[in-house]
Amino acid sequence: MSEYKKSKRIAAIVKILADNPNRLFNLSYFMDMFDAAKSSISEDIDTINNMFKDMGLGKIETVTGAAGGIRYLPIKSKEKYKKFIDDLCINLSKMERIIPGGFLYTADLLYTPGICSVIGEVLASCFAGKRPDYVVTVETKGIPPAFMTARALGVPIVICKHDSRVTEGSSVSINYISGSTKNIRTMSLSKRSMASNSRVVIIDDFMKGGGTARGMMNLMKEFNAEVLGIGVVVATKEPEVKLVDDYVSLIELVNIDEEKGTIELESGNWDKL
Amino acid sequence: MSEYKKSKRIAAIVKILADNPNRLFNLSYFMDMFDAAKSSISEDIDTINNMFKDMGLGKIETVTGAAGGIRYLPIKSKEKYKKFIDDLCINLSKMERIIPGGFLYTADLLYTPGICSVIGEVLASCFAGKRPDYVVTVETKGIPPAFMTARALGVPIVICKHDSRVTEGSSVSINYISGSTKNIRTMSLSKRSMASNSRVVIIDDFMKGGGTARGMMNLMKEFNAEVLGIGVVVATKEPEVKLVDDYVSLIELVNIDEEKGTIELESGNWDKL
Repeated sequence: MSEYKKSKRIAAIVKILADNPNRLFNLSYFMDMFDAAKSSISEDIDTINNMFKDMGLGKIETVTGAAGGIRYLPIKSKEKYKKFIDDLCINLSKMERIIPGGFLYTADLLYTPGICSVIGEVLASCFAGKRPDYVVTVETKGIPPAFMTARALGVPIVICKHDSRVTEGSSVSINYISGSTKNIRTMSLSKRSMASNSRVVIIDDFMKGGGTARGMMNLMKEFNAEVLGIGVVVATKEPEVKLVDDYVSLIELVNIDEEKGTIELESGNWDKL
Repeated sequence: MSEYKKSKRIAAIVKILADNPNRLFNLSYFMDMFDAAKSSISEDIDTINNMFKDMGLGKIETVTGAAGGIRYLPIKSKEKYKKFIDDLCINLSKMERIIPGGFLYTADLLYTPGICSVIGEVLASCFAGKRPDYVVTVETKGIPPAFMTARALGVPIVICKHDSRVTEGSSVSINYISGSTKNIRTMSLSKRSMASNSRVVIIDDFMKGGGTARGMMNLMKEFNAEVLGIGVVVATKEPEVKLVDDYVSLIELVNIDEEKGTIELESGNWDKL
């Protein structure tokens, strides 16, 4: 393949970078692909990076050294994310989202790829600097946002289960106490899910008492993993003291009034880091 | 924003299309974004489309009419997918993947975004022409491939659960018989998960007897949904007669010999459609 014009090279490079967030590409990968000189590819990357910066579409980072190269960080501008979270709050405060028992229906948004991928990006932006090896979550509703956070970070996910299935081999189980209902629950993780001494970020869709997140932290101890942070899509304001000390939330659920049919939401602490 | 050069416009357009597979964009969206003439944007799209075709990165489809526009189909060339599936078979046939009981460990691949996104694309390529409204799956391991299939198709997912949680409101439950173990299991879906009379594709990570897929088909009847097709990442060769008639598989598991430590895999029927 040879003699591609700049604009065609740029089309292909952007596509490949967008499909592989946080993956390191050596410049020679693109030089070989287009039979182009290093200076041409470097210029292409500069053009792309400037445009991404102008439009708040993320940025391209250069890693120096022999094993270096470039990687695309899908982190958009804070203003874009602020607008996105504000819109999400408006959508989530519709009264038909109230589920008897004082729960909030969020699955339709978490299960829509176009929305969930931005949720994942915002969460990833909170932890990207810590360079985790894995994103850890627990079935079920947390999986899509955790997966999209992992995609933005360029790492795999690890999924804790509420029962240990035989199809994944031997597993480690812990008991934990749900922070809100005070029930004892079990959480398991297949032994081959992750390497020992890994650096992980915990992601879930919802946090009330923090018991589930605490359970995941305890399970991580069994794998000698270092928990770098906890991120959730929605956290309730009450109880203010949760079973985990530090966590990032995109949205704070201040109050649900089932009788009046009102839901009160605020932007979480994600932009205060 | 004005006077962006062609190469810069292309960088931004590719990024936006790659982030939103199967979403329809009116050309005026990009004309406004770059303060550019329709002819310039059309030329940009042509350049991008040609490059995508040359490199097997997908294609841009034009929809005519007042509500028309362009959309990006992330369907790569069959040769690329063939190579991808062949590589997957080689990786999956490593003997350390055998789990006592004759199971195959696949979670690490399904849980790696870079791999799972291509799995989703291949599955999407089998059903894109049928224009589904939703991708339906059941917890847990099927969620990442189903989600990435849904992303490539530009539709939401719907997740059936093995227990009905109170946090999603009223739900419909069915009993089904596991095709391989003959156990009776329950599967539930929240009533507000999907609109009535929808068109759906069922995606799962694994199929042996086909009982789970059959269960999802029965649950879909309760929602008056039309099942357009069933796709799985891995299907076992035996039993050849499954509880569902038609399904697409990416990989066929011919045999696992626990004593000899061998795994025999073949490319599935995905490329025979």
